[in-house]
Order: sequence, then C-alpha cells, then structure tokens
Amino acid sequence: MTISNLLKQRVRYAPYLKKVKEAHELIPLFKNGQYLGWSGFTGVGTPKVVPEALIDHVEKNNLQGKLRFNLFVGASAGPEENRWAEHDMIIKRAPHQVGKPIAKAINQGRIEFFDKHLSMFPQDLTYGFYTRARTDNKILDYTIIEATAIKEDGSIVPGPSVGGSPEFITVSDKVIIEVNTATPSFEGIHDIDMPVNPPFRKPYPYLTVDDKCGVDSIPVDPEKVVAIVESTVRDQVPPNTPSDETSRAIADHLVGFFRDEVKHGRLPENLLPLQSGIGNIANAVIEGLAGAQFKHLNVWTEVLQDSFLDLFENGSLDYATATSVRLTEKGFARAFENWEHFKHKLCLRSQVVSNNPEMIRRLGVIAMNTPVEVDIYAHANSTNVNGSRMLNGLGGSADFLRNAKLSIMHAPSARPTKVDPTGISTIVPMASHVDQTEHDLDILVTDQGLADLRGLSPKERAREIIDKCAHPDYQALLTDYLDRSEHYAKKHNCLHEPHMLKNAFKFHTNLAEKGTMKVDSWEPVD
Amino acid sequence: MTISNLLKQRVRYAPYLKKVKEAHELIPLFKNGQYLGWSGFTGVGTPKVVPEALIDHVEKNNLQGKLRFNLFVGASAGPEENRWAEHDMIIKRAPHQVGKPIAKAINQGRIEFFDKHLSMFPQDLTYGFYTRARTDNKILDYTIIEATAIKEDGSIVPGPSVGGSPEFITVSDKVIIEVNTATPSFEGIHDIDMPVNPPFRKPYPYLTVDDKCGVDSIPVDPEKVVAIVESTVRDQVPPNTPSDETSRAIADHLVGFFRDEVKHGRLPENLLPLQSGIGNIANAVIEGLAGAQFKHLNVWTEVLQDSFLDLFENGSLDYATATSVRLTEKGFARAFENWEHFKHKLCLRSQVVSNNPEMIRRLGVIAMNTPVEVDIYAHANSTNVNGSRMLNGLGGSADFLRNAKLSIMHAPSARPTKVDPTGISTIVPMASHVDQTEHDLDILVTDQGLADLRGLSPKERAREIIDKCAHPDYQALLTDYLDRSEHYAKKHNCLHEPHMLKNAFKFHTNLAEKGTMKVDSWEPVD
Repeated sequence: MTISNLLKQRVRYAPYLKKVKEAHELIPLFKNGQYLGWSGFTGVGTPKVVPEALIDHVEKNNLQGKLRFNLFVGASAGPEENRWAEHDMIIKRAPHQVGKPIAKAINQGRIEFFDKHLSMFPQDLTYGFYTRARTDNKILDYTIIEATAIKEDGSIVPGPSVGGSPEFITVSDKVIIEVNTATPSFEGIHDIDMPVNPPFRKPYPYLTVDDKCGVDSIPVDPEKVVAIVESTVRDQVPPNTPSDETSRAIADHLVGFFRDEVKHGRLPENLLPLQSGIGNIANAVIEGLAGAQFKHLNVWTEVLQDSFLDLFENGSLDYATATSVRLTEKGFARAFENWEHFKHKLCLRSQVVSNNPEMIRRLGVIAMNTPVEVDIYAHANSTNVNGSRMLNGLGGSADFLRNAKLSIMHAPSARPTKVDPTGISTIVPMASHVDQTEHDLDILVTDQGLADLRGLSPKERAREIIDKCAHPDYQALLTDYLDRSEHYAKKHNCLHEPHMLKNAFKFHTNLAEKGTMKVDSWEPVD
Repeated sequence: MTISNLLKQRVRYAPYLKKVKEAHELIPLFKNGQYLGWSGFTGVGTPKVVPEALIDHVEKNNLQGKLRFNLFVGASAGPEENRWAEHDMIIKRAPHQVGKPIAKAINQGRIEFFDKHLSMFPQDLTYGFYTRARTDNKILDYTIIEATAIKEDGSIVPGPSVGGSPEFITVSDKVIIEVNTATPSFEGIHDIDMPVNPPFRKPYPYLTVDDKCGVDSIPVDPEKVVAIVESTVRDQVPPNTPSDETSRAIADHLVGFFRDEVKHGRLPENLLPLQSGIGNIANAVIEGLAGAQFKHLNVWTEVLQDSFLDLFENGSLDYATATSVRLTEKGFARAFENWEHFKHKLCLRSQVVSNNPEMIRRLGVIAMNTPVEVDIYAHANSTNVNGSRMLNGLGGSADFLRNAKLSIMHAPSARPTKVDPTGISTIVPMASHVDQTEHDLDILVTDQGLADLRGLSPKERAREIIDKCAHPDYQALLTDYLDRSEHYAKKHNCLHEPHMLKNAFKFHTNLAEKGTMKVDSWEPVD
C-alpha cells in the first residue's frame, strides 16, 4: 500500500513502515470478549480510525451485541466510545466516561461500569486485578494508541494526553499504533514515568511542577506492534460554556479567600500549584484568577482547558503540568500559533503521576472540583444523581481532594427543574452517594458564599454550610432538619453528627415525586 | 527540689535540670481556652502527671466546665483524656479518641470533636488551619510531651510512640517535658522526620520498611522548654480480647486468599508490608499469619500490638515499623526481655510518615481494618453508629485503605442486640455513614467468607458481597432489597448503583425501633 509522505516523516523507525495497514484490514484481529486498552484522556489523544472501522464492521454485519469488548481508557475517550455504546460493543468499561449515549447504556444496565481513582486504575490493571477472570493469564489483548510521532527506537510519542498508555502498553499482548498526521507532533512536551510495581518502586523525584525526570516517549517492544495506521482525524472537544453570574460569583468568593489566606500567611503570594476540574465553574475560576493579578502561578493538574491559555498569555502563569491538554479546536489553534513558547511552559505526564497523592501532598496543591451535591456535614457526591444514576465517574476528584493542602469544592447553590427554578438544592441533609468524605473537604463555595470548614466539628460545619452556601430558598428547611436532628440526637445520645435517618433523603424522594426538593413536612421521629 | 538519680541519668542536657518541677507547680500556666498538644498515640507515650495534676486542681476548686482546653493528640490518649472529659475540661478534641467517658461527652454534645486522617492532622495543624480563630497568631500554647530520655543537645527521645509530637513541638509556644523513669529508655528505635511544609517538601526517601533516614530524637529550642517533670506512671493498655471462632474464621479466609494471590503471581511469597488495625479480629489475623508459615514478612503499620511479638518470635517477621508500639503490660515485659533483639527489628516514625500515602502506595502495603458496617456496594462506615453516634474516629483507616495495594476490611457478619443474637447485620443496604468509599475497597471478609471486589461493577459487587459475606439470616433480605432496587432503577434509568432511597436505611430504623435489622416489609416505591 502507499504510505503518505507525512506518515514517513512521523515514523522514524523504518521497520514499522512495513506494518502500515488500513484500519479495515485489522478487523479480523478483534474477537468478542477481548480486553482492550485505548490511549487518551478526557477525549483527547484517543484512537479514532480503528474504533470507527470496527463500528462500520458491526453496522454492516449486524453484529450489535455480538462483538463486545472490555474497554479500558485512562479516563473518558472521545465520540467513538459513545458510538461503541450505541452499537452495544462494550461489556465492561472503566474508569471514567463522558457522553449521553454511554451514560445511558450504563444506566440501562447494558454496560457494566466501575469508576476508580484515576491515579490507581492503571496500576491496578498492571497488578492483574481487573482481569482475574481470564484463564490465559493475559491482561490486555490489544492496546490501540494514538501517536503523533515514532522515534528512531520505535518508541511512541503521544499527542495531547499521556493517561494510562504507559501501563496499558506494558501489559498488552499486542499494540496497534494510530499515527495522527493531522495534528502537529507533540514531541518534547511529555515526561513519562514507566510503571514499576512494589516492592521495587522508588520515590517520584519531582520537587516542582516543571521538574522532568522521566522519558519523552513510551518505549515499546517492536515485536508487539502489529500495525501502524495513519489517522487524519482530529480530536473534537466541544466549546466551553461561557461563565455566567453564578460562576463569576463563585470565582469572586474564591479569589477573595485566596487573598485572605495570603494575608494570614497560610499561602505564599503566588499561591501553591493549582488543580482545577472540568466545567464552566472551573473555567470561571481560572478566568477569575486571570483577572486577579496573582503572579508566578503554577499548575499541577489532571486536565488543562482553554482558560489556562489566558493565564499564560497575561503572564500570570509560569508553568503548567497535567496528563491531558484538552483544548477546543480554537484553543489548539491558539496554542499551536505560539507552540515554541508554550512547549517550554507545559509538561504532560502519566496519570499515575499527575494524580499521585505523593506529588499532590508534597507540592501542597490547591484542588478545586465541582460536586453533584454536598451535605450539611460536608460529604460530597461526585458521581451518582439520587444515589443511583451515573454521570461520568469519579475521575481524579478524590485523588486531589484527599491529598491537597486546600480541598475546595464549588457549585451553584441551586439548580432548576421543570417545575421549580430552584428545585434542586446543592446542599442536602445527607448526600445520596458519597465520594468525598467529611474528612476531605476544607472549603465549600457556592454563588451564595464561602464556607471555611477547617477545624470545625460536624455540627459547626452544618451551621457554616447552611449559613454561607445554601440557597435562601433552602436555608430554613435545612436549619429545620438540623434542629430536629439535634433534638432527636440529644434524646438518643448521638449528638456527634445528628441525623434523622427517616428524613435524611426526604429532599431526594420529594424531588423524584414532585420535581422539587422543597419538602412540606418531615416523617415523625422520636 | 531534689532530683532523682534516675532522672539525672535520663536528662543528659544539664540546663534542663534547673527546670525540674513538680507537676502541681505548673498549674498557674494553664488558662481556660488554651490550645494544648499532647504526645502519645493509641494510649501509649502520653503525658500523665501534668494532666493528672490539672484534674486534681479542677476537682479541688470545683472548676468543672470553667477550665477547658482545645486538646490535640496524635491519635487517642490514655485514661487521662477520659478523666478530662468527665471533668468537662475539653472544649474541642481532634483527631481521634478512645474510651467510654470521652465518647459519651462527644455524643452528649459536651465536646466538639472532629476526626481527620491521621496522616494529615499534624500537617494541617502546622498550617494554622485549626487555629484560624485565634487573634494572637499562635497555634499551640503548650505541648506536654513524654520523653524517655533527653539527649546532650536538649532533644527529646520519645517513648513507645512518636505520633504528632514533631509537629506539635514545632508550632508550640512552650513545651513541658515529662521524663518517664519507670519505663526503659527507648533511645535508638525512633526515626523521625521533622515537618517541612510546601513548597519546600522533598520525597520521603524510604524504599523498604527498615530504611532509616530521619533523626533519632525530636529537636527542640531549649528556650521553649518551661519545665521538666519526672513521671513514674506507666502506660496502661487493657488486655486484648482473645480470638474466637468468628475471628479465626475470618483469619482463615484471609490466609487462604493470600496463598491464592501468591499462587497467581499477584503477591510475592513473603507478601508485601502488612498494615493491621486494632481489635480482636486484627489480632486473630496476625495470629493466623503466625501459624501460616509465611516467611520474611514485613510490617508497615500505624500501631503494633502484642500479636506481632508472636510473629517475631516464630521467625516469620523480619521487620516492623509503626508510629506506636501499643503493648499490654505483659507485652512490654516480653519485649523488654529481648529488647536488644527487638530494637534492631523495630522502628517508630512520625505518624505523617507511617500513614503517608506516598509510602503506603510505594511499598504496596496490604491494609486490613475493621468497619462498623459495609453496604452492598462496598461503602464502609468506620466511625458513626446509625450515622450519628461517634465511636473512636476515623484513625488511619482511610490513609491505608485508599492507598494500599490490597485494601481489605474484615468484620463479623452479624452482631447481637438485646433481643436478637443476630440483630445487627454488618452488611447493610446503604451505609449510614461513609468513611471508605466503594472506590477504596478490594476485599471484604466476614466469618461467612471472602468477597473479591476488584474490577467488579456495583451490581456485581452487591451479589458477591451478599453471597460471600452476609450472614445467612440476612441474605434473603439483602437480595430482596437489591432485586427491588434493580426493578425500580430499571424503570427510572438509574441502573448503575440501584437504590430505593425510601428503604435505604430501613435496616437502621428497624434496629432503632425493634432491636433488630430484620425488616418485615419495605416502603412502597414506584
């Protein structure tokens, strides 16, 4: 077959050029029930043409539900995982996903999904924990990895994410490489730690966000590589929701808090390395910081979004490191325009390093994430609406919130339902699912205000959260729940963290039945 | 005053001998509302004579409720904290406690208590997080620390625990040292890391359980030391509950599991460093290992108990490190008999190191802890009975379970109430309080069997837990809850982690009302 000049330039290890294939030629390799690893993290750097060829194959041969895989990706993949879900091509999926079709398949019970801390998922996979049921002693059958270049030694230069690829490749029987020639080569921005398992692990030597001590490409045994496929499909990241009054109010409270911490000597003037989640609040917070005249900021995070470009451009941000740079088309265009400049201010690492407690705790990261709901005692739900309906998964939220110097969650105080513009309160009596415990949260921020929970007992926390963060429509109701719970707990000698278990989920059941969390009455307790 | 010869031998820094005082002379230093740090961890190495002198003072002058302190100890203190609780001498307490009187005071709302990961509590204290309300910019007014010797440079050699003393001393305005002459000097068994805060932290360099890279005593500015008090009161650790049929069954399941992991190459033949919690199940597990002929075991844990002595003595255990060696009187006698031998096989570290995610993850620790209850999806409650009544606090359970290579919880499948010998099921539909999330638990063991949860989706986990771990009296009930929840969730497209929120705590409310978790019927849902 003909090999494009672009591909020849990118593949600097000659023996691979003999393995160049069209995606459809690889179909026979794939069998029902296999375990697959994909590169990618938060929708960028994922394989595209091979997964698409498999969809075509399933469609043409009506193989829906008959060609299904156990699919592991560092975090969420791109539109391809959603199309796989639609075509019933996924048996099991971990540790994260994004998109309506895949969430629907999980919530309909058609995909067995489990979410896991992103810092742990790749290592647990290498331990063989997730493939215990296999009788052939293998872990992954194939890893399909997107590269933006292949070095002279056959090693793989990833694109805009590293994720779990180093681990996947290590434990994969065979490897398929999609070389993306539509995007520039990302050579030089990666710093990759290859997995070493206990008892042989050593400290990660990184002391600052810009330390580099790993390798700049992923080594692979060329014997494992069964095919090289050219890809000319770019990553597709949807545009960010612009900030609004609510998210700007949250950002303002946070910026005020940071200034105050600096004033009291609890943070240095350039703060400490920042972690910020995905979403419009996270974007607004970063926008807020861009306008707040902090200087020499640093970022140690999981994913970089467009808003970080502003921080770079106005000179506030010295250096940023993550496992994924998830930019929109516009964002990538901006970045590529100044690529030589950005390249020296940016580093992409393995997700087991970007999300590692060792680094997060050593650096004293400031972590900021958005929950589904938070209860009056500061337990947070990051994953399951009404305790049961999966959104995207845990992601790295708990990696960062458990280990950060400052663990911050931010959310709007209320959200609309069809029948009530403030039908959902973010602050609830008891979280219907707990991903972050009361022991993991320092600061809670809503558009209403900021609750500083450090060093408070549960009852003190409850008053602070209701007072500072709850929407006014819910303050009286939450206080009533707390008062009644304290009254009940006083009688029963359980006044540490007072609850009425009969009413703990009344907000949620009321919402399911009436479309609003505004309850009329409580179940009697005594 | 006269200074005993023993005290002179132990205090090798001459200027301190001028500061020797009787405990009662120090009473005027203590004012209502002060912030105090005590040495000690799990009831050993705590100060005794100064706390007792303050109790006498309160009793004689009827100062109950008028001389109250914010009391911080690395974990639980000894009987003194309970007597302080009885005399209403504690305003706020963190991060752990043990004993009926102090738990009673917390559950009656007389003490504001908060529990916090033991690896984080000392660092957050040094950040000033817990003393934000102070207007004088101080953190601790006094640290009262028990020493077993003072070195030539005035530095403090602790006794059987290190705990949070390095941090307390660093941020304490003044220091009072109780030199315990009733116990041998523990000089030589400590390896202490003094606190360094971000952005200046470096990796902890420990690669194996026996690595030592710290200092062997706690440096202190002699100017801060206001008094040296001789103490002749020994630590009092109550005898351990002997193993019984239930705890031995749990131990047997675990030993079988370890053998199987070794067979499948997921653990080396000498396993990996063990962490084991406190209590009779933990003791039985260690006993079980002593009889299982594993060799060259290592221990990286928080607390060493008597049962570890057997492991040492039969040659199974090469080395053990912890932050506290909590032996009974008999255990200490056994240890001291062979002190020169044990001394080289034992190392006590700061609790921020013994419990640090960095070390736990690097070493691949096998963590084993006992919960109050676990739900069908593997969320565990370690602290609050029926969601509200505090037992002891979180301790280091989450430090270890979040970061271990193998996270194991063990508990009896059922416990008795006054009216039903199996009135309490350890496995419940939904945990009434969550300290360990579903993302943190690999293995659950009860006397009934062992559930291997690695790589399972929530629904798969539920079947495995009910099948392997639930008491037979509860298997049908739990299955019924799960079936009905799945039926409900199917209708509502929330089949990821099916619950009926109206019935999620029916086990608990039934227990409160009828003394048993055996529910007769469910609330209707649709």
